[in-house]
Order: sequence, then C-alpha cells, then structure tokens
Amino acid sequence: MQLSIVKIGGNIIDDEGRLAAFLESFAAVPGKKILVHGGGKLATKVAEGLGVQQQMVDGRRITDAETLKIVTMVYAGTINKNIVAQLQAFGCPAIGLTGADGNAILSHKRTHASIDYGYVGDVDAVNTSLLTSLLMLDKPIVFAPITHDGKGQLLNTNADTIAQELARGLSAGFEVTLVYSFEKSGVLQDASDESSVIRSINPAYYEELKASGAIFAGMIPKLDNAFAALRSGVKKVIIGKAEELSLLLTGVSGTTITT
Amino acid sequence: MQLSIVKIGGNIIDDEGRLAAFLESFAAVPGKKILVHGGGKLATKVAEGLGVQQQMVDGRRITDAETLKIVTMVYAGTINKNIVAQLQAFGCPAIGLTGADGNAILSHKRTHASIDYGYVGDVDAVNTSLLTSLLMLDKPIVFAPITHDGKGQLLNTNADTIAQELARGLSAGFEVTLVYSFEKSGVLQDASDESSVIRSINPAYYEELKASGAIFAGMIPKLDNAFAALRSGVKKVIIGKAEELSLLLTGVSGTTITT
Repeated sequence: MQLSIVKIGGNIIDDEGRLAAFLESFAAVPGKKILVHGGGKLATKVAEGLGVQQQMVDGRRITDAETLKIVTMVYAGTINKNIVAQLQAFGCPAIGLTGADGNAILSHKRTHASIDYGYVGDVDAVNTSLLTSLLMLDKPIVFAPITHDGKGQLLNTNADTIAQELARGLSAGFEVTLVYSFEKSGVLQDASDESSVIRSINPAYYEELKASGAIFAGMIPKLDNAFAALRSGVKKVIIGKAEELSLLLTGVSGTTITT
Repeated sequence: MQLSIVKIGGNIIDDEGRLAAFLESFAAVPGKKILVHGGGKLATKVAEGLGVQQQMVDGRRITDAETLKIVTMVYAGTINKNIVAQLQAFGCPAIGLTGADGNAILSHKRTHASIDYGYVGDVDAVNTSLLTSLLMLDKPIVFAPITHDGKGQLLNTNADTIAQELARGLSAGFEVTLVYSFEKSGVLQDASDESSVIRSINPAYYEELKASGAIFAGMIPKLDNAFAALRSGVKKVIIGKAEELSLLLTGVSGTTITT
C-alpha cells in the first residue's frame, strides 16, 4: 500500500495564502498520507512578545525551558490546529499529533560533548502500530515537530528528521514516498536559477556534485537524509516546491533521489 | 462496555503537584476513558505577557481573534501536550485532541442577540465513530476545549459542555459515567463546610434545594447539565474532588446525580 509523507518548511507556514494553496493540494493527494510541519517565524515572534531571549549556537536555536514552552504552544497549538482545521475545510479528515500522543514518537534528550542544546530530542522509536491503525481508519496525520521521552518531558525535534524517521519506520508496512517540500523548485544546478532543477540524483552523481562544489551547502543535510532514507527501505524521495505537490508526487516536477 | 468521561477544571491545571496526582489517578482508571480539560490561568498570563486585552462581559471572556490565538496555543499546545506526556509517563497511552482533529467535535460560532461572544463555539455534533475507533484501540483521549466549524475556523468551547456532549453522543455505544471534578468535595449542603457533601441528588430533591436557596448559585449550571446528561442516556453523573477520582468512580466520595 502506498503512503505519502510530506514535509513542509517554515517559509510556507509563514505565508497564509501559500499555506492554504498547499493544504488544498495536500487534501487532494490520493491514498494514505502524513504531513510533517516545521515551525516558521511565529515562535520567534511569540518569544519576542513574551520577552524570552533566543539563544543561538552555530546557527541552531537552543531550546531552554522557556523556549520549549513557546515551541510547544506555537507548533502543537497554533500551527498544528490551524492546519488541521483548514484541512477539514478541504474535506481531509486529518488528525494532528505530536510524538507524545499515543507515544507516536519516542525520543531522548540530546547529549553533546560541548554544546547543551537544551530540550531537543533525538528520535528513538516510531510507533508504527498506532500510526498504521490511524492510517487504516483513513485519517491523514499531521505531525508537529515535538516528541517526548516517555518520562513526561516534551522535546523539540527537527521536522526533517521526524519525516525521515516516520518514512523509515513505516516502510516495513507501506510503499513510502517521502517528499521534502520547500521554497525552491528542487535541487538546483545554479542556486540563482529556478529553471536549473536537477531532475534526478543517484549516489554516484551526488558524489560528483559534492566534489565539484556544484551543490548548495544547505542542501547537503537534506540529501544525506534522503539517501539514508532510501537505504532504509523508503521507495522514493522527492525534493521540490510545496505549491507543486501534485506534480512532485507524479514525478513531473522537482528532484527525485534514487538509489 | 463502560466508559468514564472525566472533566477537570482550571484550578487543578494551575497547580503542578495536584495535576500530577490527578493524572496518576486518571492513568489508573480501568477501562475506556476520556479526559476533558479546561483552561486555567495560563491563558490570561500569556495574554497579559503579549499585551492582549481581555474583554469580559457578564463575567464571561469574549474570544476575539487575538484571544482565540492565545487559547489555541495554551489549551491545545501547552496544557494538552503536557497532560498527554505526563500520562504517558504513568503508562497511559493517551492521545490529545481538539474538536478539529478528525472532525471529532463540530460546532458553530455562537450567535446572540445582544452580546458578541466572538470565536465561541456551540457544539453541533460529536464524531462517535472516530472516538469509538480510538477507544477500541485502547487509546484514552484527552480533549482540549477547542472545536471547529468545519470551514477552517477554530472555536473556543466550554469544557463542561464538551464533556456533556461527548457523554451524550457516546451513550449509544457505551455505559457512560460522567465525572465533573473540581476543587470541592462534591455538592455541599453548606458551602463553607467540606464535610457537608450531599451524597445523592435526584430531580425532586434538586427542586427542593433550589427552592430553599440551599444550593450555591455556581453549582446550578453544573447540576442542570448533569440532569440533562442523564435524560439523554448517560448512566451516571458524579461531582467531586479531582484528587479523589478513584473514590468518585467507585461511589465512595462525591455527589451522585440520579434520575
């Protein structure tokens, strides 16, 4: 059975009109599906409003106790529930979850030799039995990027990672297509030219692109994740523009990552 | 099949220690169960922090657009997800929902001749099919007091009403016990004496209590709701102290409302 897992990034979430267009196209995706959303700028805005200082180390936000409260409010409350309500309006009977709900995604607090990232979770296990049951009830699932440690602690977790772990975990029971959608049309040959989309990348070509420096540094973690997902049983990984979701799923747009 | 639906009020939610004790006892309740939580003072605190003015009319909060954003964050985000994570730690595989999730509770924006309550929802329908499926998967459900109108709009909804509507809707398939738990030991003969709990109230005795003015005015809407629930098929309604949940369910503590 087919399962589409789609990750959308913050830029789409921050733009009401683009988000609505994306959600309409997600609602129209046939078959079983999961949406994983990131955070967007709202958490930063709420933190500023409440006078909570954001600490950044090497470009990564440190999730202290106050920041965890804010991301829980914004990701699991505002963003997740507004997405779910809008999907319902498009006839899509979605259920919004965090990793704590039904113990869907268990994680542990990241330990790092030199940097304390705070309340950040690295994923340990995906509850495939629960998720399969919900999908079999024909309920698309919408994940906020929050997990838990099973001991009562919520943890901030990277949305790309959640999408990848869900795809890996559910590959045993489904033919999974994993879509990383964002603001670009795909992996670009020339970062300034949206028409230079590379249609397909296999491991050998990827090494070539990296060696020649032809690839935007920000894409490297996404592509590393994509290849890791394929190695662990995911059928297909596609990278492309959120607004072109149906074209991405039919292979007309975006970059397909292959083995 | 038995189903316990328990509503907890804001006073418990505001008190970390009492909330943890309550959640441990909820986790220990045997069989199918649903928890409905109210809001507590956190929403007011966050609104103050963000400089959002709270409008009150006749002691009721008006839910304008900014207030709706805050209650969605706090109720569906902070409170709901922290309750779920704590229940997981007590071995209870709860799933936290709003009425938007899976179209669980459909409502419409309240219309009132003279007062505009703002984004407040009056319940139209409970999705008993979804809720029954989740309960049959042995997933207790934790409801935040937020519903939706099916057209993409979230709505703030009274938690007592949600508990009652769930109890009514699910009575067709379950033997429902509805528990309104709060800070008092039950319906008191003398509001200042916690030992004056009235053990049982039937409709005739209720009329007597109201006529003699022996009943605290704040209890009247709760009791009206309780009798309405019994008339619509709910098996048992119990009112009492959150910390005594297991004693309430076994009929040792609190006030039982009977037909």
